[in-house]
Amino acid sequence: MNKKRKTAIEPIRADNYPEWYQQVIRAADLAELSPVRGCMVIKPWGYALWENIKDILDQKFKETGHKNAYFPLFIPLSYFQKEATHVEGFATECAVVTHHRLEKDADGQLQPAGELEEPLIVRPTSEMIVGEMFSKWIKSYRDLPILLNQWSNVVRWEMRTRLFLRTTEILWQEGHTAHATEDEARKEALLMHQIYVDTLQEDLAIPLIKGEKTEVERFPGAVSTYTFEAMMQDGKALQGGTSHFLGQNFSKAGNIQFQDENGGLTYAWTTSWGVTTRLIGALIMVHGDDDGIILPPRVASSQIVIIPVCHKEEGKETVIAYARELKEELQSIKYRDRHLRVECDERDMRGGEKLWSWIKNGIPVRIEIGPREIEENRLSVTKRNKGHREFEHQTKDELLSSIGDQLEEIQRDLYDKARAFRDAHLHTIDDKEAFYAFFNDPTKKGFVLSHWCGENEVEEQIKKDLSVTIRCIPFDMEKEKGTCPFTGKESPQRVVFAKSY
Amino acid sequence: MNKKRKTAIEPIRADNYPEWYQQVIRAADLAELSPVRGCMVIKPWGYALWENIKDILDQKFKETGHKNAYFPLFIPLSYFQKEATHVEGFATECAVVTHHRLEKDADGQLQPAGELEEPLIVRPTSEMIVGEMFSKWIKSYRDLPILLNQWSNVVRWEMRTRLFLRTTEILWQEGHTAHATEDEARKEALLMHQIYVDTLQEDLAIPLIKGEKTEVERFPGAVSTYTFEAMMQDGKALQGGTSHFLGQNFSKAGNIQFQDENGGLTYAWTTSWGVTTRLIGALIMVHGDDDGIILPPRVASSQIVIIPVCHKEEGKETVIAYARELKEELQSIKYRDRHLRVECDERDMRGGEKLWSWIKNGIPVRIEIGPREIEENRLSVTKRNKGHREFEHQTKDELLSSIGDQLEEIQRDLYDKARAFRDAHLHTIDDKEAFYAFFNDPTKKGFVLSHWCGENEVEEQIKKDLSVTIRCIPFDMEKEKGTCPFTGKESPQRVVFAKSY
Repeated sequence: MNKKRKTAIEPIRADNYPEWYQQVIRAADLAELSPVRGCMVIKPWGYALWENIKDILDQKFKETGHKNAYFPLFIPLSYFQKEATHVEGFATECAVVTHHRLEKDADGQLQPAGELEEPLIVRPTSEMIVGEMFSKWIKSYRDLPILLNQWSNVVRWEMRTRLFLRTTEILWQEGHTAHATEDEARKEALLMHQIYVDTLQEDLAIPLIKGEKTEVERFPGAVSTYTFEAMMQDGKALQGGTSHFLGQNFSKAGNIQFQDENGGLTYAWTTSWGVTTRLIGALIMVHGDDDGIILPPRVASSQIVIIPVCHKEEGKETVIAYARELKEELQSIKYRDRHLRVECDERDMRGGEKLWSWIKNGIPVRIEIGPREIEENRLSVTKRNKGHREFEHQTKDELLSSIGDQLEEIQRDLYDKARAFRDAHLHTIDDKEAFYAFFNDPTKKGFVLSHWCGENEVEEQIKKDLSVTIRCIPFDMEKEKGTCPFTGKESPQRVVFAKSY
Repeated sequence: MNKKRKTAIEPIRADNYPEWYQQVIRAADLAELSPVRGCMVIKPWGYALWENIKDILDQKFKETGHKNAYFPLFIPLSYFQKEATHVEGFATECAVVTHHRLEKDADGQLQPAGELEEPLIVRPTSEMIVGEMFSKWIKSYRDLPILLNQWSNVVRWEMRTRLFLRTTEILWQEGHTAHATEDEARKEALLMHQIYVDTLQEDLAIPLIKGEKTEVERFPGAVSTYTFEAMMQDGKALQGGTSHFLGQNFSKAGNIQFQDENGGLTYAWTTSWGVTTRLIGALIMVHGDDDGIILPPRVASSQIVIIPVCHKEEGKETVIAYARELKEELQSIKYRDRHLRVECDERDMRGGEKLWSWIKNGIPVRIEIGPREIEENRLSVTKRNKGHREFEHQTKDELLSSIGDQLEEIQRDLYDKARAFRDAHLHTIDDKEAFYAFFNDPTKKGFVLSHWCGENEVEEQIKKDLSVTIRCIPFDMEKEKGTCPFTGKESPQRVVFAKSY
């Protein structure tokens, strides 16, 4: 009988993926549920991931001419209502502020008091309030383009919540831009889409299928929604973020007009685009294994941990001093333009427990140092993407001179593995029965490429029958014509179907 | 008759300080009121200031062992009520969420629907929710200290609002820590207090009086509140931020207990500390002049603007190319460990108007470049802290090699001027009548150092009579004993009285 290795995470992925996901978050101490319904507390190890992703994106936004600004948390109900499709998309799940103070009732219990004349909506997204300001700021074509971004929190009253994937409060960034021409606005939406795609693929090591959403799946009020879909290890899709070309819909709703070069009045063309802390959920589900999360070096909360190991009191000081010095030396090295993030774990704790805590929190590189390693100048380096006992022996000089390359190799390896998994679970199906059979079979997983005639009804029926949606009309795949397996009508190209988060 | 120079800001400070303040913000395009009651929109030039302040503080927090985390925006009413003094301090001014969706009524109007079982308070500060998590995380002395910080938004329903100084929604950071001993917690509160003081004095060039708040002015629920008070140019005080030693008050309210080294159960000792976007209001009121804001180089949104000037078409390209190259060269220089922030203003706009736009937004250094400047290698450099026509002529090499020092000189000059103003308006008064006369005389301004017996009633009476409060019991001033001019009782030292923002 094959003796099963005990895993750090129970249950393992194959047995119960959703529960495995929760346990990975707990084991890595990334976040936990708060006593506030559907809201999470993001703990330091998880928040550092978000800060690193934020830094990379923020720099790219600034390099492409965007500036950060800040708009109010609250949106008056009347503004919220201006764009009909938009309000319908959000009305069923928004937090409403109706009072502005508390007062003791007869029993001494605090009750809401000071009712507001007009209720305020806690922003689920800021198109309406940004649009209102744009309409004041934009008078002439000389005022355009306006390229803004905001890092903030938004609230969507989700009924079923899951850490990082679906929470009531979400940390995110939302870009909002206004342009003089349709062409410029569409280019902007596509540029930001590409910046997201590059960041996810290169820095989060998550392979993507990029494309456009169908009308049914589009952002409420958008003309085009550009998306990028990642495959989780259970075969489900996760939308990493979206970039919307809003046309003139929000300009008309918010009266954003400008005098063009010929003196005529024109509605501005706007875009909006955003990614959220959901990306951390994607990271976990793409790179995690049965021992926990594996962090891609470029965004890892910390990249390296040094663990001084000394069983005798004698020599302990030397080992600690060596470890601390190595930490300093590593920290002074720049990787991807930023100083390496290095920990030195001097906690008073059993060696095995300590080691496993770092495996579970996914740090890319572990360096164990004892008296012998120092004496022989032979550091024991293990990597989270390899076996936990696959020691590489490196001299200190070797380590210091090549650590950047070593981290990049881990980064590449994570991407390659995820890419191989994704490609192995990308199925082409041209037959309705086979399509239904695939998604009804719990042993099958992945995305399905099928033809589609373009009708909303087909999409809605499939969603009803199988909880499967069209994730996107892909950009970079062959545009081969064919027949829709659901209606027999002509189809311009295959689209991506999947169950999703 | 003395012909008055026309100023960029009207009214000038001497004529109407509050209105001058609003006009400075408008002229520098820092922020504006939004249609949401009491909430502002922070525009890019203002937000960049906040980002720079944030970067400096964030680095100092991390260097002293703090980690960033994120806690929920909402606090359930029942948690909010746990600490009696605390809830009283905030109950009269908080936004209350009572519903979680919108529904159309008979007239087709959207109305709040889905009433919550328990109302949620939009956080005015997070002690209660952080404390709740601390109580789960802290089991043993080994779990301590916990040193956390959060960058977030909070809401306080202020009746009278003013941009940056008092708004309904506030951007801030709030630190929350828990310790095993009283001594360690008090040291933490004082350490963070000192970090704030250093940042304000060194980076914002704002001279401070640091000290402790009286019981009346203390944070609701704190044992000690440490503060730092700056003098605005109208002589009023502005509290830059506070650091609180909370003792065991919040631990007892939130049941934050741990097993100490001897196995006994002890309540943890906690602190909290925060600064807000109010600091930008302080910057404006300390450094502004009748032509607008003056930005201290270390936190300036941008530090240098290059203005290519060429009246003829001929040679225009050369001038623009030279300006862009100079921008690149300057940007590659590091000042205070970060790349210089440089603008090149190629806007198609009248020269005078363009120049004044930069004077009004307070950029520290302006460099005008025309064909002659290039030919003679003689750049025209003007500085915002000097006369607008005080050109310094520098060769490009001189500029590039000394720009860091030049910025530091501006930084020092701003501090010195503010310090001189503050010192000139620091009055010692030992007589009640003279005290009342001073604060009743609209031609007099500044802080008053007076003895005080320590009784709350005295303080409250003065507040009622004069709208003057004790800003702090100063740390670094002579602790000379004396007589309280209000009661004739003994006083241990003089304290700082002032009107305040």
